[in-house]
Parts: sequence; C-alpha cells; structure tokens
Amino acid sequence: MTTGRLEAFSDGVFAIAATLLILGVHTTSDGPLGHSLLHIWPSYVAYAVTFVTIGIIWVNHHTVFGQVETVDRTFLMINVIFLMLVSFIPFPTGLIAVHFRGSGLEAAALAYGATLTATAVMFNTLWFYAARGKRLLKQDADPRVVTGISRSYLPGPFIYLIAMLVALASPLASVILYAAITVFYIAESSLFGRSSAG
Amino acid sequence: MTTGRLEAFSDGVFAIAATLLILGVHTTSDGPLGHSLLHIWPSYVAYAVTFVTIGIIWVNHHTVFGQVETVDRTFLMINVIFLMLVSFIPFPTGLIAVHFRGSGLEAAALAYGATLTATAVMFNTLWFYAARGKRLLKQDADPRVVTGISRSYLPGPFIYLIAMLVALASPLASVILYAAITVFYIAESSLFGRSSAG
Amino acid sequence: MTTGRLEAFSDGVFAIAATLLILGVHTTSDGPLGHSLLHIWPSYVAYAVTFVTIGIIWVNHHTVFGQVETVDRTFLMINVIFLMLVSFIPFPTGLIAVHFRGSGLEAAALAYGATLTATAVMFNTLWFYAARGKRLLKQDADPRVVTGISRSYLPGPFIYLIAMLVALASPLASVILYAAITVFYIAESSLFGRSSAG
Amino acid sequence: MTTGRLEAFSDGVFAIAATLLILGVHTTSDGPLGHSLLHIWPSYVAYAVTFVTIGIIWVNHHTVFGQVETVDRTFLMINVIFLMLVSFIPFPTGLIAVHFRGSGLEAAALAYGATLTATAVMFNTLWFYAARGKRLLKQDADPRVVTGISRSYLPGPFIYLIAMLVALASPLASVILYAAITVFYIAESSLFGRSSAG
Repeated sequence: MTTGRLEAFSDGVFAIAATLLILGVHTTSDGPLGHSLLHIWPSYVAYAVTFVTIGIIWVNHHTVFGQVETVDRTFLMINVIFLMLVSFIPFPTGLIAVHFRGSGLEAAALAYGATLTATAVMFNTLWFYAARGKRLLKQDADPRVVTGISRSYLPGPFIYLIAMLVALASPLASVILYAAITVFYIAESSLFGRSSAG
Repeated sequence: MTTGRLEAFSDGVFAIAATLLILGVHTTSDGPLGHSLLHIWPSYVAYAVTFVTIGIIWVNHHTVFGQVETVDRTFLMINVIFLMLVSFIPFPTGLIAVHFRGSGLEAAALAYGATLTATAVMFNTLWFYAARGKRLLKQDADPRVVTGISRSYLPGPFIYLIAMLVALASPLASVILYAAITVFYIAESSLFGRSSAG
Repeated sequence: MTTGRLEAFSDGVFAIAATLLILGVHTTSDGPLGHSLLHIWPSYVAYAVTFVTIGIIWVNHHTVFGQVETVDRTFLMINVIFLMLVSFIPFPTGLIAVHFRGSGLEAAALAYGATLTATAVMFNTLWFYAARGKRLLKQDADPRVVTGISRSYLPGPFIYLIAMLVALASPLASVILYAAITVFYIAESSLFGRSSAG
Repeated sequence: MTTGRLEAFSDGVFAIAATLLILGVHTTSDGPLGHSLLHIWPSYVAYAVTFVTIGIIWVNHHTVFGQVETVDRTFLMINVIFLMLVSFIPFPTGLIAVHFRGSGLEAAALAYGATLTATAVMFNTLWFYAARGKRLLKQDADPRVVTGISRSYLPGPFIYLIAMLVALASPLASVILYAAITVFYIAESSLFGRSSAG
C-alpha cells in the first residue's frame, strides 16, 4: 500500500468528522428564533474551535506523511485507531455545546479533554513508531527536521491532559483553555509559519 | 504540502456539506403524506439553492487553486477557517426551511446571510493573501487573469451583506434575493462561460 | 479545471449520498427488537435497491467522463444540478421505507419516481451537452461508442416516468418496478458486460 | 474504468461508514451527565470495535486491488453490493449499543453477525471473481501470493457465522466474540505483519 492511498482515506475521515460537527448545532425549541440563535452561542464556539482543531490535526498528520516512505500493517493499525479517535471528537463537542450552562459541563469538559488527550497520544504513537530508527521514514529524511517534528508533537498529550484536569477545579476554565490552545496555534502559525507549509 | 492534497481535503468538505443538506428536508407529521410533501416546498427550494451555491463556491475555490503554486501555514489556516464556514451553511439553510412561514423567518434570513457574507469574506481573504505581491501564485500567472479574478470576487461579501440587511425590512425579499443571486450566477455562466472552465 | 477534479468531487457526492441512506433505516420503538427488525424489511429493500441504483448512476457517470476531454462552466453547472438530484435521493427513499404499509405509499412512490426521472433527465442533459457536435469530447472519440452511449441513456427518463405514473394506479406495483429496473440492470451487466467495464 | 477510480469511490464509502458510527453514540437523558457517560460504555466499545473492523476490511480491500489490473461490469456490481453491506454496518452497531443491557441483545447480535457474515461472503465473491483463472489479476501476479490471499479470506464468513450463531445460546458471548475477532486481528498484524503492508 502506498502512503498516498492511506492519506486519501485519512483525509476522508478528517473531512467527514469536521463536517459532521454541524449536526451538533441545534436551536432550542422554546421562544422566538432570534433569541434562541443568540442563546446557543456556545454551540458556535464549540463548533468553530473543534473544526479548526481537527484542521490542525489534519495539517500535522500530513507533516508526518511528508517524512514517511513506506507503511507496514502495524502502522496501518495505529493509523486506524488514531482515526477512530479523531472521528469520535464530534461526540464530546456536542456535549459541551448542550451542557455549557448546566451542571454537566464538568463531565463534558472531561470527556472532551480525554478524547483530545487520547488523540494526541495516538498521534505521537503514529509518529514515533515511524521515526524510531527511521523505521518507515524516507532514507534522505533530514535528522534535524525529524527531531524538530518529535519535539513539536511531544507536548500535545500533556497540554490536553492539563486542560482536562483543570475541569475538576473549574469546568469553564477548562473549556476556555481548549479554545485558547487552538487560537494560540493559529496565531503562532500565522506569525512564524509563512515561509513554509505543512 | 502540495496544493493537490489541500484541494482533495477541501473537496471532501464541500461534497459532505452539500450532501448533508438533505438531512434538513423533513416531512411534517400531521395530515396525509401527499399534502405534507407539497406543504414543505420551501425545504426543496432552500435545498436546491444552497446546494448550487456550495457548488458555485467550489468552482470558485478551484479557480483560486488554478493560480496557486505553493502554500504556507497561514494560507492553510485561512483555508481551514473558510471551510469551517462552508460546512456551517447547512445550519441556517435548515432554519429557513423550517421557519419559512413563521415569525422566525427574519432571524433565519439574517443567519443565512451572515454565514454567506462571512464565507465570502474569508474567500476573499484566501485569494488576496495568495495574490498580494504574487506571494503564493505561479510565477507565470497572467496579471490580467489575476486582476480579473480579484474583480469578480470582491463584490461577493457586499452582495450577501445587502441581501442580509434586506431581511430587516422584508425577510421574504431577502430569501428571494439569495435565490436570485444563485440563479443569476448560473444563467451568467451558461451564457458567457462556454469557452473556458473553472 | 481538469475532468479528474470534477470526478473526484462527484465521486464524493455519490459516496456520501449512498452511505447516508443508512440513516433512513430505523427500528420501530414498540414490541420486541426481533419483531421490529423483521417488520421493517421494506427499509432494507429500499436501502439496497437505492444504494445499488446510485452505484449504477455512478458507473454511468464515469462512462461519460471516459469520453469527455474538457469542461466548460455550463457543463460544470449541469453537473452540479445533476449531483443536487443524486444527493436528494435519500429523502424519497426514506419516505417509501416509512410509508410502505400506509396510505402514504402513493405519494412516496411518486416522489421517488419524480426524483429518479429528474436525475435521469439531467444525466442525459449532461451527456448530450458534451456530445452535441463533440463539443467537449475527446477528438479521437469513436462515433459508434458515442452513439451507443446516447442510445443506452435515452430510455432512462421514460422508464422512470412510466414506473412513477404506475403509482397512480398501484403504488405497490410502482415500487416493485423500481426494484425490478435495478435488478434487471445488474443481471444484464453480469450476463453481457464481462468483456469490458465502465 | 481504472481501478484507481473504483478504489477512490470505495475509500469514500469506507471513510463515511466508519465516521457515521459516531452518530450512534448518545447519552441517556436521565440523571447527571457524568453517570450517563459512564453508563453508556457499551456504545464506546461498539463504536471502537466496529470502526476498527471497517478499517481492517478497508485494508483487505486494498490488498485485493493490489493484485487486480482490470475491472469488468460484473466486478463493478459485486463491489457496489459489497459496499452496500459495509455501509449497512452502522445500523446493527447502533442496535448493540442501545440494547446491550436489554432483552433485545440477542436480536441485535444476530443482526450484527448477519451483516458481517454477508459482508465477508461478498468480499470473498469479489476476490474469487477476480482471481478465478486470473480473470482480472495482473499478469505477473505471484501465484503464491494469490493463494495466500485466498486462504486468508476464506475463513471470514465462517468465523462471523459461528459468532452469530453463538448469540442463540448467549448474546453476550456473541458480542464478546465480535470484539475478540477484531482484537485478535490487530494483535496478529502487529506481531507478524511488520515487514510488509496492505
């Protein structure tokens, strides 16, 4: 199997998972529509933050495949489990949108954080399985680029784990942290990332 | 990252957002099915107009990529935010279908217009970020073609903003305008666009 | 725009429309699950027949693109409207599944037939727009192949129109005809189509 | 039609069917959200096992296409019917998630097993139709590889048929078997499959 085919399948899952997020945006049935549309603003924020988060994961996924030359069945299986987690993200996103004002926000924030933490762990597993001893990398892969990628991905699981644990003290702070992580990543990409892509 | 991969991902989002529109077409549960199917004709029009609108945005998106040679991270992020807006379109489309005969049509028409205006703004951002000083364009891009594209995209946000503001005076007129914009674009393409594509 | 990109977008819509059909299969909430699963057999048949029908349309769509070399904006717009109809098919399919035993079957069968008839009309429009005077065809397109394609597509709208009109006399007969058309096409492909594809 | 286009369409159906599984994960509306999220753990397991199962079928589907050179209409139709079954899998998966603790588990386990058995039968049909007398295979296909593929696919229908029949004695044992089949496949791939892929 070529990496191209694996990427096409992965891109499909990324695109569908991101687009399905809109099914989690609903108006409440009581009161005038205008009020309802304003009242559900947490749905819009949850939708936007998560769509962009999936977009960022997709960009990083392609960065990995830019270095990978061959795949084996273990790598295929790691990728399937990783995609299973990406595809799960719409579920906790919907929970945060629905329970934003209620007592369920703590559980929703924990579920969101657990999903993102697990996704980040599997993403690192995917990368380090390929990169360990250059197992699946291109022969001419630049060691400094490989080390740079490793360094930039390692903090992911810890950042999401911390944001998740914050929910035990303040669910609202946890949710703000999730949004801040995404905003920070976009800002950083725009300021420092203009010379090269992916 | 090649532009080809970015287009494949974008095409996936376009195709899914357009196809998900059908989930917004529902029969009402009361009365005979035949009556219900006739009664919900606004759903069909909303579906058709929005599907074709997404199709037109998709055609324009490819016109941009026909001129773009390289991408950077800022461009990637702009594209992700643009796709986030495209993928949001099924939500206000469903609102117009459901509230067409009720007092909620004003809010629904405003939501639809706001989404399309924001989409057009991000589309222009995408194009002008790439075209400014030929930052990401092909070296041999024809300046007249580039200027022609710029001119044809600039009115988009204003057209949708005006159609949206019309909803404050007459929601029905606003919705008719949205349909007219799409019909006009198809007619214009068919009459003047036969010699070349995309 | 290359035909390859147009086909990729079209394939996406075909694949999503077909896969969304499963959302129209529901169990009824009363009684034991085993009984419910048997009771809803019309859902399974409607799902299977329509999935295969979309598959057949997809095969025919590629036959067209095997002859097409260039596209213009009119062709793009015809294709978008054609895809809008394909993507609409899950809606009347769900109607037949839900109203199979009720008085709504006539309206459901008419809606299904009208959708398939319109799809077949737009498909012919797509083909004849490209083939008229070889407007968009490959220069070396074999005239006999082109004539053969024209002949095989022309009956489609009439066949579905007749099956639809039968619903006015007997909705059940109409629905059986829809299934028979699909079964006949598969059988004919298997018996006579082994030497070449698509 | 090239095999590449057929694979792209198939990949789309695989990706959508897998991603739609998340629509079957719901919280119950009574009690605190935290309790509800723990209570619905069977949904998570059903989601994970089935997502990975579809991933495995996808890997095997590509193994077939790695040997196939040409396609005919019969092969296209077999593939469409095979994809119709893959796309059906989210329905019985949702049944197991909802009825895990109730008396409906037997019917749900039978429906899941019947779907997977039929999918495995059509997958074998797809492969043996192509491989019989090397009908559609590459001329230089290695006979030992072809025989190896045949051997590895043949047990599939029987394994799922047995796991399905177990549901008549113990629905819970049947469901555990479905999960065990998937876990076994992943473990086996990881231990023995590192040298080559697909």
